[in-house]
Amino acid sequence: MSRSVTILGSTGSVGRSTVALLEEAPAGAFRVEALVAHRDVTGLAAQARRLRARCAVVADPACYGALRDALSGTGIETAAGPGAVVAAASRPADWTMAAIVGAVGLPATLAALARGGVLAFANKESLVCAGEIVLATARAAGATLLPVDSEHNAIFQALEARGGGADPYATVEKIVLTASGGPCRTMTLAEMAAVTPEAAIRHPIWSMGAKISVDSATMMNKGLELIEAVRLFPVPEDRVEVLVHPQSTVHGLVQYADGSVVAQLGTPDMRTPIAHALAWPARMAASVPRLDLVTLGRLDFFAPDPVRFPALRLARESLRAGGGATTILNAANETAVGLFLDRRLGFLDIAAVVEETLDRLGAPTVTDLSAILALDGAARNEAARIAAERAAA
Amino acid sequence: MSRSVTILGSTGSVGRSTVALLEEAPAGAFRVEALVAHRDVTGLAAQARRLRARCAVVADPACYGALRDALSGTGIETAAGPGAVVAAASRPADWTMAAIVGAVGLPATLAALARGGVLAFANKESLVCAGEIVLATARAAGATLLPVDSEHNAIFQALEARGGGADPYATVEKIVLTASGGPCRTMTLAEMAAVTPEAAIRHPIWSMGAKISVDSATMMNKGLELIEAVRLFPVPEDRVEVLVHPQSTVHGLVQYADGSVVAQLGTPDMRTPIAHALAWPARMAASVPRLDLVTLGRLDFFAPDPVRFPALRLARESLRAGGGATTILNAANETAVGLFLDRRLGFLDIAAVVEETLDRLGAPTVTDLSAILALDGAARNEAARIAAERAAA
Repeated sequence: MSRSVTILGSTGSVGRSTVALLEEAPAGAFRVEALVAHRDVTGLAAQARRLRARCAVVADPACYGALRDALSGTGIETAAGPGAVVAAASRPADWTMAAIVGAVGLPATLAALARGGVLAFANKESLVCAGEIVLATARAAGATLLPVDSEHNAIFQALEARGGGADPYATVEKIVLTASGGPCRTMTLAEMAAVTPEAAIRHPIWSMGAKISVDSATMMNKGLELIEAVRLFPVPEDRVEVLVHPQSTVHGLVQYADGSVVAQLGTPDMRTPIAHALAWPARMAASVPRLDLVTLGRLDFFAPDPVRFPALRLARESLRAGGGATTILNAANETAVGLFLDRRLGFLDIAAVVEETLDRLGAPTVTDLSAILALDGAARNEAARIAAERAAA
Repeated sequence: MSRSVTILGSTGSVGRSTVALLEEAPAGAFRVEALVAHRDVTGLAAQARRLRARCAVVADPACYGALRDALSGTGIETAAGPGAVVAAASRPADWTMAAIVGAVGLPATLAALARGGVLAFANKESLVCAGEIVLATARAAGATLLPVDSEHNAIFQALEARGGGADPYATVEKIVLTASGGPCRTMTLAEMAAVTPEAAIRHPIWSMGAKISVDSATMMNKGLELIEAVRLFPVPEDRVEVLVHPQSTVHGLVQYADGSVVAQLGTPDMRTPIAHALAWPARMAASVPRLDLVTLGRLDFFAPDPVRFPALRLARESLRAGGGATTILNAANETAVGLFLDRRLGFLDIAAVVEETLDRLGAPTVTDLSAILALDGAARNEAARIAAERAAA
């Protein structure tokens, strides 16, 4: 029983890990339907050849000729442009990895969800920015959302022990997301005020892109994950907690009404949660380094500091506000982080800009994708305006 | 849908915790069929009245009159003696707690298993001493064994995340039992040679009886649990590991082929695993203290020291030897611990007596309960003889 697989964002970090797992899987276990990349034609073409994909699509239309030439004679279909990305996502497949980073991945994610099947979810922005629409699309199509963020995948695994009963989530008391605490974990507020882009992207555990590294330093990453958790799992916001755990070994925990806490642990390697999602509801082998608690020796846990890391509070407030507040939070944060990376905004100003944008724009009702995209744009403009005001002051 | 419950050993520590959970459960969730105690008539009668049990049985025949008088006019049936214990265990019930300590609990445990249903298992000696017979009886009756030892219950919970597939245990790479390390964890061999019964029973985490506290100090307790794990879970001995974890917060872990490690954590309170077993395959509420990782702050992990704690090696060797070797291990250990508590054997001599008994008696084939009980007796005699030789030398 071969499982047909599509990867949206196959040349990024999560996409490459997914390809690596498909390559080490037993012959015949998977068949690749479509691979979609942004503009890395060389990487995409090599993946498509190795995996014998039926179709390879590049989002940047300017790359079409190069892709066609690179795959000529292989029989692999090629296409380019945003419409082709959505068309590739719409091709029937049992399992789809949604790993296009940012709100730009939303149309393809929705197209994949709309045809049902299993959607492995590495695009947290979709759930933060357009959670209701993503969930409604999945419900309507009977699609299954599997998180591959290490924290949410851990919680998904820990929830497998929830047991049956009339309402199997009634005895879930608490969901706990762990956070490494990022590079500013032990800094004073004064030290944080002077943090440079170079310092912020020096993450102690995970090797990641610049934007997500800054989010880790501000802990907004955990705020976005908190929103993602509330959307993915049937628990209210006040039953989701964040725990600082510098070793990033325990990825997530679920506390049950009988006092049991079930957790998933592992080395920080994305291939584990991706493999879990690829094989679910079974499991498959993955050649990741195994956890060695003896060598690790100890695991530490701290409460997050609400003064130095206001991002968690902002995420909770935007969830409670409802409507488009989380769309605003995400857009204002992306804008502020971009300005910080360009040295046009201080590190502590990132959260301040997000808070001010939320204050000014409130929580307008958004009912469809175009309203969300409009609100996303408005929030980006407002955040840029606020940042400019702060720079001028 | 009321679940009918019988408790074998209701006035002991596990039995009292089970009764406490039944008392805090919603009205109508459980109905008590039989309560069985050794000789604590007052405790037993009070439990039977509060829980409106159908039947109360005391193992010691000399206590019959007192029990009958204590429950006269209640309509609760009373009986006494070993035969009555087995008869009580044979009465139909959906769920039975097997919490009679030691090999003496074996006939009642087997009687309960023989009528099918769910057997919650707190009597590890039965599985160590007569594992094949216990498992064969369960298989023949279609009974389900649920471990309530905190470590095995943790592993049972962690295995709930194993997923489906043709063989859902094929991707279980490793089972890890944690051990507090006991009161001798940081002692030198010379310090251990001088350990007194008083020092040995001062357990850092769990408050337990004298015999099991000494087993914790020698780590034979973990050796017995290793045997129990291999009998309960479909993994070979070389895939079961022991990890020293002084805080006793992580109770057990399962490592899967995708690199995921799923663990169960909690405060050291027997009510959690008992509640898990009582409600399984659902969950129920239990008013145990909740785990607070922030207050706890850190968790430590060490490899067990094979030189200072040879008990783990002896348990593995007896498993590999097969036949009645684990029966011999258990009997020799019970004898040696008794002599140590009577100050007739040194602390380090406990493991030495067990090893010598195993060497002398080998691994004879045992096919039925009477052969096991005969071997158990022979091993006790041999162990006493070896201890006397050591004292005389």
